[in-house]
Amino acid sequence: MSEARARAIGLLGGGVIGGGWAARFVLNGVHVQLYDPAPGAVERVQETLANARRAYQRLTMAPLPAEGALIVANSVAEAVRGVELVQESASECLELKQQLLASASRAATPETLICSSTSGLRPSLLAKEMNHPERLLVSHPFNPLYLLPLVELCAAPATAPETLERAAEIYRSVGMHPALVRKEVDGFVANRLQEALWREALWLVHDDLATVQEVDDAICYSFGLRAPILGPFRIGAGEIGMRQHMAIWGPVTLNLPRRKLADAPELTEAFLDKLAEQSEARDDNQKIPELQQKRDDCLVAVLQGLRAQGYGAGETLARWEKGLRDRAPQLTRASGQLEMTRQIPSDWIDYNGHLTESRYLQLCGIATDNLLTYVGINAEYRSKFGSYYTLETHLSHLGELYAGERVQVLTQVLGADDKRLHVFHVLTREGDEKPAATGEQMLIHVKAGSGRSGPAQGSVRKRMLELARKHAELSRPERAGASIRLR
Amino acid sequence: MSEARARAIGLLGGGVIGGGWAARFVLNGVHVQLYDPAPGAVERVQETLANARRAYQRLTMAPLPAEGALIVANSVAEAVRGVELVQESASECLELKQQLLASASRAATPETLICSSTSGLRPSLLAKEMNHPERLLVSHPFNPLYLLPLVELCAAPATAPETLERAAEIYRSVGMHPALVRKEVDGFVANRLQEALWREALWLVHDDLATVQEVDDAICYSFGLRAPILGPFRIGAGEIGMRQHMAIWGPVTLNLPRRKLADAPELTEAFLDKLAEQSEARDDNQKIPELQQKRDDCLVAVLQGLRAQGYGAGETLARWEKGLRDRAPQLTRASGQLEMTRQIPSDWIDYNGHLTESRYLQLCGIATDNLLTYVGINAEYRSKFGSYYTLETHLSHLGELYAGERVQVLTQVLGADDKRLHVFHVLTREGDEKPAATGEQMLIHVKAGSGRSGPAQGSVRKRMLELARKHAELSRPERAGASIRLR
Repeated sequence: MSEARARAIGLLGGGVIGGGWAARFVLNGVHVQLYDPAPGAVERVQETLANARRAYQRLTMAPLPAEGALIVANSVAEAVRGVELVQESASECLELKQQLLASASRAATPETLICSSTSGLRPSLLAKEMNHPERLLVSHPFNPLYLLPLVELCAAPATAPETLERAAEIYRSVGMHPALVRKEVDGFVANRLQEALWREALWLVHDDLATVQEVDDAICYSFGLRAPILGPFRIGAGEIGMRQHMAIWGPVTLNLPRRKLADAPELTEAFLDKLAEQSEARDDNQKIPELQQKRDDCLVAVLQGLRAQGYGAGETLARWEKGLRDRAPQLTRASGQLEMTRQIPSDWIDYNGHLTESRYLQLCGIATDNLLTYVGINAEYRSKFGSYYTLETHLSHLGELYAGERVQVLTQVLGADDKRLHVFHVLTREGDEKPAATGEQMLIHVKAGSGRSGPAQGSVRKRMLELARKHAELSRPERAGASIRLR
Repeated sequence: MSEARARAIGLLGGGVIGGGWAARFVLNGVHVQLYDPAPGAVERVQETLANARRAYQRLTMAPLPAEGALIVANSVAEAVRGVELVQESASECLELKQQLLASASRAATPETLICSSTSGLRPSLLAKEMNHPERLLVSHPFNPLYLLPLVELCAAPATAPETLERAAEIYRSVGMHPALVRKEVDGFVANRLQEALWREALWLVHDDLATVQEVDDAICYSFGLRAPILGPFRIGAGEIGMRQHMAIWGPVTLNLPRRKLADAPELTEAFLDKLAEQSEARDDNQKIPELQQKRDDCLVAVLQGLRAQGYGAGETLARWEKGLRDRAPQLTRASGQLEMTRQIPSDWIDYNGHLTESRYLQLCGIATDNLLTYVGINAEYRSKFGSYYTLETHLSHLGELYAGERVQVLTQVLGADDKRLHVFHVLTREGDEKPAATGEQMLIHVKAGSGRSGPAQGSVRKRMLELARKHAELSRPERAGASIRLR
């Protein structure tokens, strides 16, 4: 699949959603030209960008590209100049959106994609005043936009098929999961579902059957846990098949008395007061910045868990990371040593607040994998010829590392022959002189499918021996070859 | 908080929910007396128990207690004899449930708690024919019951307060999160919310706006990812406060046209056909056992992710594990070596299908932690006097380990003085003679709050030196003191 990556996008509006778009694109190496005349808008976008940067450092060990620039534009015309895609993210007001989209369509070249982030307005309505309405599309994202992958694409009858295809490729290239909405409909698909839940939640509070916290907890501890994994139709069909599920549960769940409150309660002053008071009285009523960081950390944990299972949004994450790795240049130092830098994720910490010891080994493992990639071991080589397996590791802890710190790992090949590979990793906190840890490893080349050792093949063997010769000129680390003794 | 642990429960009905209750109680060391006259019921409960066993082995490294027995009873009276709690989990039919609960109430002692798993029937109705209706309670769980922690407790006006308290303690002791429903209401809280979503999902498919897979995906890739973390009220208040959120989104989401389909579609034959056909045509239409295992593995990943964040259902999991650890006996071998056995979780595997190398070190770390606990290092000792930190580790890989295998770790103290501790771990696959790996570690005692080494204190120091003397009589491992060399 060829990947259409945007070099720059124009962003109209820098609220919660606009800031999220800015973060997703900038952190994926795309320049963002932002137009938002509201006072403080740029600062709020910068805050969202800082939150997203923090979240991505926890989310992935894949090398992120150099950040795109966040460029402040003074007009719609300036924001859309020279971009591949314009993302309109203004307030949910039809006239305002129509006017912005029309201005953008007059200022941009005809091939520029023009997308609206509306949470529910139909694209035919939005396109009314536009030039070239065939490049107008709704692309509706979810907050926090830099972590949640869904973007619903809703076309008007006038939208050109290539508009949809080009936009979907751009969103995929920044780690999103584009989903096509079949028909023009108010609220599209996900928001209609979300709002049905929302109306029922309001009724429960309105009728004093539960507080806002009790409603939220009822979801988070029960079907909410399944929600990243199983949609409502999967829950039914997962145990007994859809037809039997409907026969048993249709009458129970869809008839009176349980469907009786399907409308929405009126938002009287008294009801709004109740909602606000209960929200302020929550057990864990943290400030908004802390709440957002906790939310992001938990989302990162859920996404990483699903990635390990190769499932749903975790699969989207893995695909994005693969793209990042494929695009990343190989890094070596002037000395010829291999170098990588990683930030310590917050969940790599033990009860003492230090980096857990097994994570030191994981860092060494990633550095060894980088070395193997560097000499040319890839999926094809692995399935045809095999790969290197670790025989022994000797870790020495010389200092402490903490969450959020950046660690540089320098890798030196101490020796190699046809089969064996002897490497030494030095882990140093960025800015420090003394290393925090060292890791020495002996690996052996194992033939594909045999479980037995055998010589490395072809250019991999050649590059590995070459690297060993070059690294033999470096000074030998003092701790190399040490053993553990209680003297 | 004192913990009321049941020794035995009576279970009436062994369907999806009954099987889930059986699994949760049996795996927490509680005997289950099951009555279900339906053919094949016991076999289906055994299958659920097998799924749950598999899920728990992945879920936690905490030592599970010896399993309770699953005892097949031939009558309601036999099932409820001598138990602390009766859990009725029959089909969702009022008359059937009333009759079972009445029989149970006549056969059980008056202090036996009697709980119904109904998904929505009011407890006052259920209690109609019972003796001692003050011990009747609805306790409504969610599938898969052995993983999802919520249990909604709904009392009738006649229910005694101590009934609620005793039941809540029992559910907590098996790792659940009891939530009290404020008033008697059809569908309680979580099911009313879930069914509102369900009705809207049905409309979307009914009106051909989305297929069942598109509806499920729209949730799993967007607000479903937030659902284990943020309820609907938290999403609103998380960014801008509840009042401002309602001012912006109230009119958009609660008025026409977006609320127009708030009722439920009629289940005509044609609509049922469509649902069944789309369900069978899904991309990933796996067989039910594989689906259930994938679901469980993903849920385990989500729960473990939230546990690392100390959040929501992850906190419930951590509290349960703490209870398991506190109750577990210390294990040593006849030889005096410390012994532990663990099953390799499925997500500890690398792309070659083997145990990832850093997990070998994690197993050694858990064994070292066990040793430290054994000599008396606990939270109090740590905050007062300090603990041991690893200086060096030498791992040797002698064989491969795979997911699902059970590994025994034997730990020998090779030497200790006032400050230092030299240990050797041997990791062997259960049933094998030759070890799969060894791990040698040097640790040093660090004084609390100082970051500097200092002697171990009091009985910890005494027990550690004693253990070193005892272990000095064992033969010294061949690989101890080895260094890494390319010969």
